[in-house]
Amino acid sequence: MLVDGVATTQIQANDRGLLYGDGVFETILFVHGRAPLWTRHVARLHEACARLALPVPDTAQLEREAAQVCAGLARAVVRVTLTRGSGERGYAPPRPAQSRRIVSATVAAEINPDWYRRGIRVRWCDTRLAAQPRLAGIKHLNRLENVLARAEWNDADIAEGLLRDEADNVIGATAANVFAVIDGQLRTPALYHCGVAGVMRAQVLAWRTEAQVQVVATDELMRASEVFLTNAVRGVLPVRELDGATWSVGPVAAELISRCRACGLLPQETA
Amino acid sequence: MLVDGVATTQIQANDRGLLYGDGVFETILFVHGRAPLWTRHVARLHEACARLALPVPDTAQLEREAAQVCAGLARAVVRVTLTRGSGERGYAPPRPAQSRRIVSATVAAEINPDWYRRGIRVRWCDTRLAAQPRLAGIKHLNRLENVLARAEWNDADIAEGLLRDEADNVIGATAANVFAVIDGQLRTPALYHCGVAGVMRAQVLAWRTEAQVQVVATDELMRASEVFLTNAVRGVLPVRELDGATWSVGPVAAELISRCRACGLLPQETA
Repeated sequence: MLVDGVATTQIQANDRGLLYGDGVFETILFVHGRAPLWTRHVARLHEACARLALPVPDTAQLEREAAQVCAGLARAVVRVTLTRGSGERGYAPPRPAQSRRIVSATVAAEINPDWYRRGIRVRWCDTRLAAQPRLAGIKHLNRLENVLARAEWNDADIAEGLLRDEADNVIGATAANVFAVIDGQLRTPALYHCGVAGVMRAQVLAWRTEAQVQVVATDELMRASEVFLTNAVRGVLPVRELDGATWSVGPVAAELISRCRACGLLPQETA
Repeated sequence: MLVDGVATTQIQANDRGLLYGDGVFETILFVHGRAPLWTRHVARLHEACARLALPVPDTAQLEREAAQVCAGLARAVVRVTLTRGSGERGYAPPRPAQSRRIVSATVAAEINPDWYRRGIRVRWCDTRLAAQPRLAGIKHLNRLENVLARAEWNDADIAEGLLRDEADNVIGATAANVFAVIDGQLRTPALYHCGVAGVMRAQVLAWRTEAQVQVVATDELMRASEVFLTNAVRGVLPVRELDGATWSVGPVAAELISRCRACGLLPQETA
């Protein structure tokens, strides 16, 4: 792990990332030292820095550090965390603005090939996402809602939990975005009030320009002909089962999975 | 600083407090080694642990560690942070539940005596607090809303910013609770959807049992005969000026300030 470029496993305990969750992060898949979605991660990081008035890190330096921490790993998940550094006690951001850069890598978990062939089981979470337009869309460090939602189940057979807002509209999953084919139209929820705008979601929107970004109600999702999740590490995950409803892997998800394999985001299918 | 009882200035960079803001904290005033509001801080910490399913720390051990870090300081602010410790990557809380304890002290900032004699200037913040009943009331580590609100002004003459919810109801200040005397009745906002239920707020509610906990609309606050803030370190702060309205220090705030001085929360007034 590198903290501001220095190899270590620790950070200052007065870092505002720990004190207040004052920072942002990216979770980036590297395949043999290359990140297929690198440009999208950098774009989102820049957007997040702008929203929180954090200094933007040097992209080339970030890329070097990411390559350094995942050297030798075939499939690695690199986490880049950017905090507002250390400062005096209190919420007021230090002036001039400062930041601290934490770059670490772990081996990417084995992906169950059945998830792509047959789809995953998901559930509804009781935890509702609060509406906060100032923070919606970006991947900031205030993730207690996700932790609470993920703590709702402990059944290894359930791969994800779906999250809704207070109005019962679908927003995403604890660590993924959601897409659905509703009345023949590919849709993904608008994330103006809550949720994280994932880079894999952005990639799917670029691949499928006919997709609409708009509100998805619970009942609309349940009558969709296809439901799938997107995640920067897991790619495209078809949903097989949710709350008594079942789906087979649909043509849109199947085509997107092929594209993920073609660009290296997912491993080639083995027999 | 003590991390799980060991003197250090650093923590593991994979602590979930940093990764996700997965934890809670208390900011406790110690005066010559004694915390006047200790019992209330412990009660809130226990409530927060219950809400987030964090193991409750040993109170006697916590008290020993707090006394240790503030030894020799006349007025100290002890911060107790409790995180969900380190774990595998991902939002799922480690099972069995675990926690990490961080106890540190800083010298309490000088308090401007004029703040208590004449009151403080405050402003409205544009940042609105999101409604999240699962997290409302507790002092968790997801404090980006407070950071964004506190970043709205940089005028040293403005001591605090008031925060409202989406419905324009008053909730509190960036680092304080708010009380107002409205139509002769002492009131403080209900915090079921957002806000932090401060220990000084709890102390004032115990001292003034006639106080009502209920919604406070913006216009009700503006026509109050008295407005004051409460904070565990600063005690009771009368509001002198807000958005063109001015107040003198009222009888309720004056009496509460006297009580704070009597129990050691505030220093004795000097001539």
